[in-house]
Amino acid sequence: MAGNSLGQIFRFTTWGESHGPAIGCVVDGAPPRIPLAEADIQSWLDRRRPGQSRFTTQRQEPDQVKILSGVFEGVTTGTPISLLIENVDQRSKDYSDIKDRFRPGHADHTYWAKYGVRDYRGGGRSSARETASRVAAGAVARKILAQALGSAFRVRGALVQIGPHAIDRGRWDWAEIENNPFWCPDAKTAEKWAAYLDEVRKEGSSAGAVIEVVAEGVPAGLGEPIYGKLDADLAGAMMSINAVKGVEIGSGFAAAAMRGEDAHDEMRMKDGRISFLSNHAGGILGGISNGEPLVARFAVKPTSSILTPRRGVTVDGRDVDVRTTGRHDPCVGIRAVPVGEAMMACVLADHWMRHKAQCD
Amino acid sequence: MAGNSLGQIFRFTTWGESHGPAIGCVVDGAPPRIPLAEADIQSWLDRRRPGQSRFTTQRQEPDQVKILSGVFEGVTTGTPISLLIENVDQRSKDYSDIKDRFRPGHADHTYWAKYGVRDYRGGGRSSARETASRVAAGAVARKILAQALGSAFRVRGALVQIGPHAIDRGRWDWAEIENNPFWCPDAKTAEKWAAYLDEVRKEGSSAGAVIEVVAEGVPAGLGEPIYGKLDADLAGAMMSINAVKGVEIGSGFAAAAMRGEDAHDEMRMKDGRISFLSNHAGGILGGISNGEPLVARFAVKPTSSILTPRRGVTVDGRDVDVRTTGRHDPCVGIRAVPVGEAMMACVLADHWMRHKAQCD
Amino acid sequence: MAGNSLGQIFRFTTWGESHGPAIGCVVDGAPPRIPLAEADIQSWLDRRRPGQSRFTTQRQEPDQVKILSGVFEGVTTGTPISLLIENVDQRSKDYSDIKDRFRPGHADHTYWAKYGVRDYRGGGRSSARETASRVAAGAVARKILAQALGSAFRVRGALVQIGPHAIDRGRWDWAEIENNPFWCPDAKTAEKWAAYLDEVRKEGSSAGAVIEVVAEGVPAGLGEPIYGKLDADLAGAMMSINAVKGVEIGSGFAAAAMRGEDAHDEMRMKDGRISFLSNHAGGILGGISNGEPLVARFAVKPTSSILTPRRGVTVDGRDVDVRTTGRHDPCVGIRAVPVGEAMMACVLADHWMRHKAQCD
Amino acid sequence: MAGNSLGQIFRFTTWGESHGPAIGCVVDGAPPRIPLAEADIQSWLDRRRPGQSRFTTQRQEPDQVKILSGVFEGVTTGTPISLLIENVDQRSKDYSDIKDRFRPGHADHTYWAKYGVRDYRGGGRSSARETASRVAAGAVARKILAQALGSAFRVRGALVQIGPHAIDRGRWDWAEIENNPFWCPDAKTAEKWAAYLDEVRKEGSSAGAVIEVVAEGVPAGLGEPIYGKLDADLAGAMMSINAVKGVEIGSGFAAAAMRGEDAHDEMRMKDGRISFLSNHAGGILGGISNGEPLVARFAVKPTSSILTPRRGVTVDGRDVDVRTTGRHDPCVGIRAVPVGEAMMACVLADHWMRHKAQCD
Repeated sequence: MAGNSLGQIFRFTTWGESHGPAIGCVVDGAPPRIPLAEADIQSWLDRRRPGQSRFTTQRQEPDQVKILSGVFEGVTTGTPISLLIENVDQRSKDYSDIKDRFRPGHADHTYWAKYGVRDYRGGGRSSARETASRVAAGAVARKILAQALGSAFRVRGALVQIGPHAIDRGRWDWAEIENNPFWCPDAKTAEKWAAYLDEVRKEGSSAGAVIEVVAEGVPAGLGEPIYGKLDADLAGAMMSINAVKGVEIGSGFAAAAMRGEDAHDEMRMKDGRISFLSNHAGGILGGISNGEPLVARFAVKPTSSILTPRRGVTVDGRDVDVRTTGRHDPCVGIRAVPVGEAMMACVLADHWMRHKAQCD
Repeated sequence: MAGNSLGQIFRFTTWGESHGPAIGCVVDGAPPRIPLAEADIQSWLDRRRPGQSRFTTQRQEPDQVKILSGVFEGVTTGTPISLLIENVDQRSKDYSDIKDRFRPGHADHTYWAKYGVRDYRGGGRSSARETASRVAAGAVARKILAQALGSAFRVRGALVQIGPHAIDRGRWDWAEIENNPFWCPDAKTAEKWAAYLDEVRKEGSSAGAVIEVVAEGVPAGLGEPIYGKLDADLAGAMMSINAVKGVEIGSGFAAAAMRGEDAHDEMRMKDGRISFLSNHAGGILGGISNGEPLVARFAVKPTSSILTPRRGVTVDGRDVDVRTTGRHDPCVGIRAVPVGEAMMACVLADHWMRHKAQCD
Repeated sequence: MAGNSLGQIFRFTTWGESHGPAIGCVVDGAPPRIPLAEADIQSWLDRRRPGQSRFTTQRQEPDQVKILSGVFEGVTTGTPISLLIENVDQRSKDYSDIKDRFRPGHADHTYWAKYGVRDYRGGGRSSARETASRVAAGAVARKILAQALGSAFRVRGALVQIGPHAIDRGRWDWAEIENNPFWCPDAKTAEKWAAYLDEVRKEGSSAGAVIEVVAEGVPAGLGEPIYGKLDADLAGAMMSINAVKGVEIGSGFAAAAMRGEDAHDEMRMKDGRISFLSNHAGGILGGISNGEPLVARFAVKPTSSILTPRRGVTVDGRDVDVRTTGRHDPCVGIRAVPVGEAMMACVLADHWMRHKAQCD
Repeated sequence: MAGNSLGQIFRFTTWGESHGPAIGCVVDGAPPRIPLAEADIQSWLDRRRPGQSRFTTQRQEPDQVKILSGVFEGVTTGTPISLLIENVDQRSKDYSDIKDRFRPGHADHTYWAKYGVRDYRGGGRSSARETASRVAAGAVARKILAQALGSAFRVRGALVQIGPHAIDRGRWDWAEIENNPFWCPDAKTAEKWAAYLDEVRKEGSSAGAVIEVVAEGVPAGLGEPIYGKLDADLAGAMMSINAVKGVEIGSGFAAAAMRGEDAHDEMRMKDGRISFLSNHAGGILGGISNGEPLVARFAVKPTSSILTPRRGVTVDGRDVDVRTTGRHDPCVGIRAVPVGEAMMACVLADHWMRHKAQCD
C-alpha cells in the first residue's frame, strides 16, 4: 500500500536504503516445491552489478544474496522468501556537499516535500540501488515460470537506443547482447555507442536510453480485463523503475500514426493453432496475452548526477548551484536491462498465478 | 483483484457489458460531505457520449447516470456510491457475422483463450463502452479534488496527434478544444484532421491518435515511492484504457535522446517557493509530484473495426476473412480524451487520500 | 479498502442503504462457465427474507434479485456479476422521532462521529438490510464450490441458542431446521424458544442468539498461514455481520478450560486416508483446513430497537429518552443463519481460489 | 495475499521459520518523523521472550532486534522499516522423532496437505516463534499511536483465565499484572494458577487460557463499515495468533443470553461529551469505535506438545503414537498476552490512518 510491494499473488516487498546496512526483499506467494538456491538468484544479480565496464558506476558492490527463509532442503516451502543483500561499499563519505540541497532531476525535493525528512545518503530510498532487490525477486519469478511454462519460456532484454542513436533492427541478433557491455543486439551500433558514451563521460554529462524486453513462450490467456490488464501491469511495473519516463507495448506510439489496415495483426491457422501474421500488438489484446511474444519498451532519462553545475535550491530555500561528483553511471539505462527483465518476469509470475486462481 | 477495480483508498469497481441491460460502477472510499448530484456526473458523461459529430460512432446512447446509493441530502455519506447507466441502444441486432469468429485487433480471441466463453455481443466486457463508467467515477474524483485542492486544481485533456499529423505545440490554445470535435488545442491542425478523417472514414479505414492530459494545481508530495509511484499508477491507469499502446510522462521517450544538461529541470526560488525552470519531468520526480503541472500522454491504436476485409479465424479453427460493418468510431482516440482525464482525476484522488493517510 | 468489499480473488463489494432505491453487490473474480441464473440466488434470498413468521420483522420486501452483468447464455463469463435488489417497502415514513437522536445499541452515533453525516433513514448503510447482498454473493459462492468440490460439499447453519436457552446437542437433527421458524436442529428447544420469544416480543424487548455454521466436504489444505488463516478470515467475516459480538471455531472458548490430552484431535488412518477421532479443532489447524467439517459459531446481541425507553442523546448534545417503535426483529439472530452460511461460502470460495493460485 | 501481511496502510509482512537463521518483518506505511530506536522495540520483545519463569518454555532466545532500514537520525523516514531477529537457540537438534510424523493439534498435517512439504524443524513457519515479529511490529504501532493520540492512549493485556480458573473481575487491579508471571490482574487467582500450572507441568500436560486486551484513549470514529469493521479486523487479527480458537468483543458470547434492555449501553451527556453508562459494546458499535475503551478477549487452546503419548499418523500413512519431549510452554496463553496487545496496536494504527485518509 505504501508503495513498496508489487504483485497480487506473487508479491514482493522491498526495503532498504542506498547507504544503510543492507537492502532486501520478502517474496510472498511463491508456489511450494520450486527448486531454489542462492546461486539461482546470484547469477542474475551479477548481471546488474555495477563496475563491470567503464560505462557503469565504479561503486564496488558484490551484491551477495542470502536466503533467510522460505527454502528448505533446496525447495521453496510456500512461505515467505526473505532475501538480504548487504551494502558493502556504502562508504561513510562526506555528504556535506549535498546534505542541505536538492539536486535537479533527483527525488531529493519531492521526498522532502512528502515526508519532511532529508535522507541525504546517496539518494536514500530513491536510489537505483533498490533495483537489486527487484532483480532478486525476478530470479525467483523466473524459476516459477520455468517450471510452469517449460523451456519455451524465456525473458530477454536489450538496449535499443542510447542517446539519439537507435539500433538498426534489421541487424538484431540476440547472441550479440553478451558480446558488448550494453546488452546491444546490433554489434555495429554497440561500437557507435561506445564512442558516444566515452565522449559523454569525458564531458561529465550523461545519456538516456531505450530498453526492450521480450518474453517468449507465454501462453494465450494471461492478464485480467480492464484495470488488471497485462499491459497495464507491465506499464506500471516498468514505469516504476528509476528514471523511466515512457513505456510502450508492441508498436507503441508508432501505432498512433498507422491506419487500421496496418495496425492490427491478422490471423491464420497453422499446425492447428492460431498464428498471428505480425505482432504490432506486442502479444497483448484487450489486456490479455495472445500467445505471441510479449514486447515492452521503456525510455530512461539521462543520469541526473552530472559534473556540469546546474541550478538547484537548498532545503532552507536558497538558490544554489549543484555539481555532482562521485561515482555515477553515465547511462543508467544500461543496468536497467536486467531490471526490466525482472519486472517482466515478476508481472508474468503474478498473472500466471492469478489466471490459475480464476480460470484453471 | 480480478481486474475490475482501480485505486486503493478512492477505489472504484466497474461492471457491465456493451450490450447487456446496463453498465455501472461502485465508487468506494469517497470522503463524506462532498456535494454530489447526478448533474455533476452527467456533464462529464455528455463529453464522452457517442454520436456528437460525424467522427464518432453513431450509436445513440443517452448515457443517463443514476446515483443509487452513497449520497444523502445532496452530499456524499462516506459509503459506497453506486452509479448506474442503462444501455438504451443495445439493439438486439444480428450478430451472426461475428458470432463464431475472432476479429483481428479485438479481444475476441484472448477473452476466449482466457475464459472459454464467447460473448459476441459487440465486444461484451472488452468494449470501450466500459469507459463511460470510468468517466462517471472520474466525475466523483474531480469533486473530491476540487474541494481538497481548491480552484487552482484542474484536469484537462487534448488530442495532440491523429494519424501521422501532430499539432504544432507553438499554437497550443486551451480555449480551442471546445471549438472543434477533436479536443484539439491547435485550430489549424483541427482542420487538417477533419479532412484526414473524412478520407479515412470514406475508405472504411481508421486512424490512431495521441492524447495529452494535464493536471494543474497538484501540490508537491503526492505519490508513493517505488511501486506506488504516481507515474507508475498513471501509466497503469492510462494503459488500461481500450486500445492504448503507449504512455509517457513529461518529455517521455524524447528524454532518451537528451543529454543530462538538457533533461533535468533546474530550480530557483521564486516568491518564497521552489520554482522549476522547465517541466521535462512532467511534474513527477522519484514517483512523487513536485508541484509543477502533471503531464501524461498516451497513444491509441486505430479502431480495430474497419470495412476492409482482414484475415481472421473462427472459434472452431478455420481461416476466415472478417469485415466489420456497423457503427464505429473512425478514431477511438477522440472519445479517449475525457476518459484520460477521468483516469488522471481518479489516480490523483486516490493518491491525495493515500498521502493524507500516511503523511498528514 | 473503505470496507465494503470482502475477499481477495472471489471478491464482492456491496452498496446501498436500507431506505434508498436499491441495494446490491458486484461479485468479481468468479470463475467462468459456472451455470448461474437468478433463481439460483433467489432461493437463498428467500430464506433470509423478512416477514416469514411472527418472530421476524414485518417489513415486506420481496428481495427480488436481478443479474445485470457477468452472465451470458446461462453461464458466468468471468467478468463482474452485478446483482441488484430493489427496496420496495422503504416507506417514506416519518423519521422525526429518530432524526436528531442517537439510539443506544445502534451505529447512529458512531457513523456520525466518523462521517459527520446523519443518515437517519432506518439505519442507512448500517442496517442489517445490507445482509441481503451477502446472501446473494454467497449464492454465487455456493455454485462455484459445488462445481469445484462436488456433491460432498455442503454449508448449513443452525441456531443453537436464543437468549439463555441453548439446544440439547444430543438431540441435533439437521432435518429439523426446516420444521420450525428458527432453523433449530432440536425440535424440543424450538418449542421453548417460541414461548420465550413470544414473551420477549410482547414485552417489547428482544433476545440474543448463537448461530453455528458447518461446512462439510472441504478438502484439507485450504487457508493461508499467519494472517490469511482460514479461521482468521472466517472470524473477520462472521464478526462483520450486524450485531455479532463473538466468534469461535470448533471447541472455541471451551478449549481454554481443557487439558492438553483432551483438546487435540487424535488421528488414525482409515481407508487409506487420515481420519480425526474428534473435531475440537473445528476442521482447522494452523489456519489450514484438515479435511474435517468446518465448524464456526457466532453470538448475536439482542436487537437494539426495543419498545422500552432507553437513555440516549441528540445530535446536538441533549439527553433524551429513546423508544423505538416500528417493525423490528425481536431476535435478529434468526435471520442471521442464512447470512452466516453465506459468509462461510464466500470465505471458502475465496480460499479455494487462493489455494489453486499458489499450490495447484 | 499469501497470508504473511496484516493491515492496509500500516502494513507489516513477517517472514522466517522457527529454526532458520533469523525471523523478521517489514513494516510499511509508518508515518515519517516518528522517533524510533531499537530500544523502543526491544522493551516489548523482552516481555514476550521465553524462559522468564518456569511457566514458559526454557528455549533461550535473546530476541535482539535490529533495525535495517526506514529510520534515519532517530526518526522514521516514511519508507519500509525492516526488522531482523536472529535465531540463536535453534539447536541443530535431532528431529528424527518427529520428522516423518504429524503431531496431533499441530499444523504438521495441514501444512503438508497444502504445500506438499514437511518442514519438521520445530514447526517451521507455523511455530509461535513468528509472534516475536508481531510484537516488534506492534511496538512501531504503539509509537505511532502515542504520537497521534497522546498520553491518554494505552493498550494493555491481561490473562483472565487459565484452564477452568477464571479471575474474579471484582479484584481486577492493573498494577498486579507486573507482580506475577501470568499478567494476572487478580493476585489471588495468580496464586491459584501457579499451583494449577505446576501440577499440569509435572503431569506433562498443558492448559488453555483466555486473554483480555483493552485499549484506552481511542477516539470515536475509527473503523470502517461492513467488511472493514474495527471488530471484524480485531477478530481476524486475534484469531490469527497461534492456538486461538475464539474471539469476543465487549460482552461477547454473554450478550447472546441478555435481553435488549440489558445489552445496550445507554448514553448521557457529561462535561459536554457523550458518555456511555456501561460498555457491553466493548467500545465498538456498527464496527466503529464509540470513544469507550476497546475490549477484546480471545481463547487459547492448551499447548499441543505434551508428554502423554497421543495417536498420530506418519507422512507415509502409518498409525503412530506421538509423545513430544523438549522445551515447551505448559500454557502458551501466557506469552500470548503481549502478542494480543501487539495485534490491538497494529489494527488501531492501521485504522487510525485509514480514517485520516477518508474522513479527516
